[in-house]
Amino acid sequence: MLLMSKLKVGIIGGAGYTAGELLRILIHHPAADIAFVQSESNAGKPLSAVHTDLFFVKDMIFCKETNLKADVIFLCKGHGESYKLLEGEKIYAEAKIIDLSQDFRLKDDYSTLQNKYGSFVYGLPELNRHIIKTSKNVANPGCFATCLQLGMLPLFSKHLIQNDVHISAITGSTGAGQKLTSTSHFSWRNNNMSVYKAFTHQHLKEVTQSLIQLDPSFDNSLFFIPYRGNFTRGIIATLYVKSEEPVEKAREYFTAYYEDHPFVHVSDKNIDLKQVVNTNYCQLFVDKYEDTLMIISTIDNLIKGASGQAVQNMNLMFGLKESMGLDLKSTAF
Amino acid sequence: MLLMSKLKVGIIGGAGYTAGELLRILIHHPAADIAFVQSESNAGKPLSAVHTDLFFVKDMIFCKETNLKADVIFLCKGHGESYKLLEGEKIYAEAKIIDLSQDFRLKDDYSTLQNKYGSFVYGLPELNRHIIKTSKNVANPGCFATCLQLGMLPLFSKHLIQNDVHISAITGSTGAGQKLTSTSHFSWRNNNMSVYKAFTHQHLKEVTQSLIQLDPSFDNSLFFIPYRGNFTRGIIATLYVKSEEPVEKAREYFTAYYEDHPFVHVSDKNIDLKQVVNTNYCQLFVDKYEDTLMIISTIDNLIKGASGQAVQNMNLMFGLKESMGLDLKSTAF
Amino acid sequence: MLLMSKLKVGIIGGAGYTAGELLRILIHHPAADIAFVQSESNAGKPLSAVHTDLFFVKDMIFCKETNLKADVIFLCKGHGESYKLLEGEKIYAEAKIIDLSQDFRLKDDYSTLQNKYGSFVYGLPELNRHIIKTSKNVANPGCFATCLQLGMLPLFSKHLIQNDVHISAITGSTGAGQKLTSTSHFSWRNNNMSVYKAFTHQHLKEVTQSLIQLDPSFDNSLFFIPYRGNFTRGIIATLYVKSEEPVEKAREYFTAYYEDHPFVHVSDKNIDLKQVVNTNYCQLFVDKYEDTLMIISTIDNLIKGASGQAVQNMNLMFGLKESMGLDLKSTAF
Amino acid sequence: MLLMSKLKVGIIGGAGYTAGELLRILIHHPAADIAFVQSESNAGKPLSAVHTDLFFVKDMIFCKETNLKADVIFLCKGHGESYKLLEGEKIYAEAKIIDLSQDFRLKDDYSTLQNKYGSFVYGLPELNRHIIKTSKNVANPGCFATCLQLGMLPLFSKHLIQNDVHISAITGSTGAGQKLTSTSHFSWRNNNMSVYKAFTHQHLKEVTQSLIQLDPSFDNSLFFIPYRGNFTRGIIATLYVKSEEPVEKAREYFTAYYEDHPFVHVSDKNIDLKQVVNTNYCQLFVDKYEDTLMIISTIDNLIKGASGQAVQNMNLMFGLKESMGLDLKSTAF
Repeated sequence: MLLMSKLKVGIIGGAGYTAGELLRILIHHPAADIAFVQSESNAGKPLSAVHTDLFFVKDMIFCKETNLKADVIFLCKGHGESYKLLEGEKIYAEAKIIDLSQDFRLKDDYSTLQNKYGSFVYGLPELNRHIIKTSKNVANPGCFATCLQLGMLPLFSKHLIQNDVHISAITGSTGAGQKLTSTSHFSWRNNNMSVYKAFTHQHLKEVTQSLIQLDPSFDNSLFFIPYRGNFTRGIIATLYVKSEEPVEKAREYFTAYYEDHPFVHVSDKNIDLKQVVNTNYCQLFVDKYEDTLMIISTIDNLIKGASGQAVQNMNLMFGLKESMGLDLKSTAF
Repeated sequence: MLLMSKLKVGIIGGAGYTAGELLRILIHHPAADIAFVQSESNAGKPLSAVHTDLFFVKDMIFCKETNLKADVIFLCKGHGESYKLLEGEKIYAEAKIIDLSQDFRLKDDYSTLQNKYGSFVYGLPELNRHIIKTSKNVANPGCFATCLQLGMLPLFSKHLIQNDVHISAITGSTGAGQKLTSTSHFSWRNNNMSVYKAFTHQHLKEVTQSLIQLDPSFDNSLFFIPYRGNFTRGIIATLYVKSEEPVEKAREYFTAYYEDHPFVHVSDKNIDLKQVVNTNYCQLFVDKYEDTLMIISTIDNLIKGASGQAVQNMNLMFGLKESMGLDLKSTAF
Repeated sequence: MLLMSKLKVGIIGGAGYTAGELLRILIHHPAADIAFVQSESNAGKPLSAVHTDLFFVKDMIFCKETNLKADVIFLCKGHGESYKLLEGEKIYAEAKIIDLSQDFRLKDDYSTLQNKYGSFVYGLPELNRHIIKTSKNVANPGCFATCLQLGMLPLFSKHLIQNDVHISAITGSTGAGQKLTSTSHFSWRNNNMSVYKAFTHQHLKEVTQSLIQLDPSFDNSLFFIPYRGNFTRGIIATLYVKSEEPVEKAREYFTAYYEDHPFVHVSDKNIDLKQVVNTNYCQLFVDKYEDTLMIISTIDNLIKGASGQAVQNMNLMFGLKESMGLDLKSTAF
Repeated sequence: MLLMSKLKVGIIGGAGYTAGELLRILIHHPAADIAFVQSESNAGKPLSAVHTDLFFVKDMIFCKETNLKADVIFLCKGHGESYKLLEGEKIYAEAKIIDLSQDFRLKDDYSTLQNKYGSFVYGLPELNRHIIKTSKNVANPGCFATCLQLGMLPLFSKHLIQNDVHISAITGSTGAGQKLTSTSHFSWRNNNMSVYKAFTHQHLKEVTQSLIQLDPSFDNSLFFIPYRGNFTRGIIATLYVKSEEPVEKAREYFTAYYEDHPFVHVSDKNIDLKQVVNTNYCQLFVDKYEDTLMIISTIDNLIKGASGQAVQNMNLMFGLKESMGLDLKSTAF
């Protein structure tokens, strides 16, 4: 039946990394047709001039206009730009919107914009699946935010956390986008490691908002050390917290919580990052040492941490199978 | 119509890299069902104990027996082992066979085995598509062999090569398999480069066999310098040869030759390896400097250079769309 | 004066990574001559057959005997082997000994061996410099242990720590030695990250022993998450602890503590790992967020974390300048 | 005797990669004192603000003036800038000059500048050692040029080459300097490979000039395929040519030619790049297949290919031991 009415998809800010990933996924999505890909600076060029691995995509060029018709529009511009687009009413009002920036992730943020586009739902399917299904606009979560929340949601849904949570995580270089900076220079980054935004990473706000949604009484702290890694794709995070729960019980909670979520897998043995690279999966390992519960959480920052999750949200918003178009072959090596 | 009768696929030698890649592809193939995965040393274990990124595959375990029924059997054991299996008649005789080893790639090799399984066709679709479609057994080409042939076939089909061809190529570590060796040790290989098998790489034999198939008069030499690269996936090869053909003409030959081959793309601007990593594509760049014609050829060694091409052959052998199951999202980064 | 009497140095277990690093350093040390390099499995071979970058070292071969004369002997065999050598009295008794294994790092360990070789001092110069100068035997610290202790010693010397310390750290592959294992395979480790020995890493024992030496009242916990990194050399660790000390004060303590220690540098801006790779330096960054004090500590695991520190200890034990032979050019990139 | 009169060294263009390497080497050079380090854009900043691994260098700041006194001045600015500096007479005229740019490498180039600074000698010690010793100005060779010439000089000195030479080489990212470009972005370059400037690399001119210096009758071609590698340091090149010389004979020529050159090592077994990384060595492997002679040549592009060779030239120009300050510990891993 879908054959007659594929979704018309628009992408705004089409030259960046997340837009490239969206294209890589949507081009093979059985229920979506790409209606337009907008990029002001690349208008008129073929897609493959920017996303060079899409050499097999013929006859698609970047357009300049943002205000084009589509069933769903993905906003892939930098932080702050989505807000401006909606504030300026530069987007087709009938379209559903999936925003990959951080502009509408916090409740305080979406309430400030009172216009024809309506409000946003925080688009973490493992937290808000039901409301996503009926929402017009979705704020797609941040990459670290996705990785960390998936490592904690089951515990908070059971109100099990009465202590500080200690987190370290390492992210691939694509998390920082395609801008040329001193920390994205190959000669600097290759074989290097460094810490940035210790304790203050902006994603902590959306994480905390979700945890309080599940457990309003939570008033402990999240201590978060993010590292820049010398690889391109993926995030691995380790979280630990004092807890009286036995490890078997904790694993049960995790397994039960994610039972009907197709993209989260709970492992009972140690995991490594590449098991999920180039897929929409989050894999979790739950373990315990004395009275400390530890969770290792891994995702591909560009897929489950961005564009894959955005497609997952699109599927939910349009009543499609949640995993449609997301059966991606892992890179594995 | 296929819904009623998916292909039953068997994999023998299921624990190695090429078997893992086959599984990653076939699990999402719309017209194939995995009937059995054999591994003597892992019999009884779940697939995911070996191919750990397949954690989402439940209830499939390695079996021990080789002689099981299937419509098509992929042989993924080490070189020499396929020959032994057929010699010992240890494989179901009715199945079509796709052999990923080098045992049956040379005409001299398959002629030595005279038994119930029948003869083999060299499975490079861009050379032998028609005969592959009707063949019972296919010898899947080597990774370097695929990369080099695709860079030369159009020229030889036109009998344009009257000079030596000079080739350098760099291969990823997965080309050497999962065996632990001094040159596969991370501490050695990271940031390192080295030459191996200069001028004598075994794949030159199958390359030469194919070139002579197209141009029996060819009696020049192929000079080949293979390098071990410090990356996991992919081969980039540069070939050059003296030629009077103008570059525009050469590009025309390449474009025409590959016009109806879905997995070879001829570029008119420079290319890089990652454009094809994690895909079944070969991308070629054809250029000329003075009277020297140069072709750069890139593939993913495990996909177009092994398991992806094997599935492409399966599709051809069973009358399926050649690209079925092979719309793979590139890693890109 | 040293010209007349260079130290005669012996190395036992000469084929491993730490022995290789010792050779790379000692070959250019102005006051040391290599008397012998022992390796049972390589006896008779030239050094450069194993340490191939030492191709310029002519006429030195591995010997088989352990019981040869020298002024100082470095023990570079695996853990447990040093103990056996001394227990079996297989080493020249007059030599000073620097043991790079973990066999004699804990006080309980060296007390169990009561024979002619005498006792061991824990060889962290920034903790025990004075006693190292007059000691006959030194137990060279572990790589993680060095990195973590240097990030904490000043705080413990001032009795400032009354809370748990939270630590994450990432180590290069050479930390795991030259053994071929699944986690040292390039195809697995490249672009990968994983956690191992969470909370239970064996180096925590020697770290705790040193902290208690400085502050016997310490009875909080060290929570330690070690990661395997996809690079060859170096450790970066981040430690944090609740503390009322202002950051300026904390930096003062660090600077004062390391004032006359030539190989520890306290930075007041963020640091990255490659600043110390291929050197004997430890670089520290001290910072504070709200009431949490954070220290980032970086070393080269094979140099300050092993063989460089061993040479530093040798210099101290023989009254040489502490930094002699250790003015190493960093790799930087 | 040198204690009383260390060389006063000036560096102009002090913020780039080659200047950083010079500093790393000269800081530990026993006969050199750094008199000044000039950088227009960094004037007033400490050296360690740019070369962050030099954190241990206190009290040295970049100056703005180029016209300061020194015994020897290294020019480390971009190509074209050295010429301008001399044309504008902006450098102290009494100083000896070592130019790391390509501005004075070709005889035609230095002849165009007729002023008080005098002429330049091509500073490849293994070709021009005697004349370097008495020259006032040296043009330091390019990195590829060094690697390729060292792989051919012995053959050309014997007039053995009557055929085309075929060359492929792979270079580390530092060869492209610190400029931020799309091909220096970590997300692009990591795990990637690409060809650039095939057949036309600018270093071929200086290579050819040297070959003709040794064998004026040479009129064959050099076919050169340079690859961008996904590592930071080093060049590996493979050269081959038809030759009637037996391999033993060829090795003899190489060994004899380099017998009294301390930084070139001829191996009779296969080599790999990391054996020379972070050293001033060039290592060569000479082999033969049928009638094709092959040479593999490896250097560190920033050391023997730039700053190390510049110091080697300084040593020669001032009558110091050729290897002084260049006993560098290899990174090895």
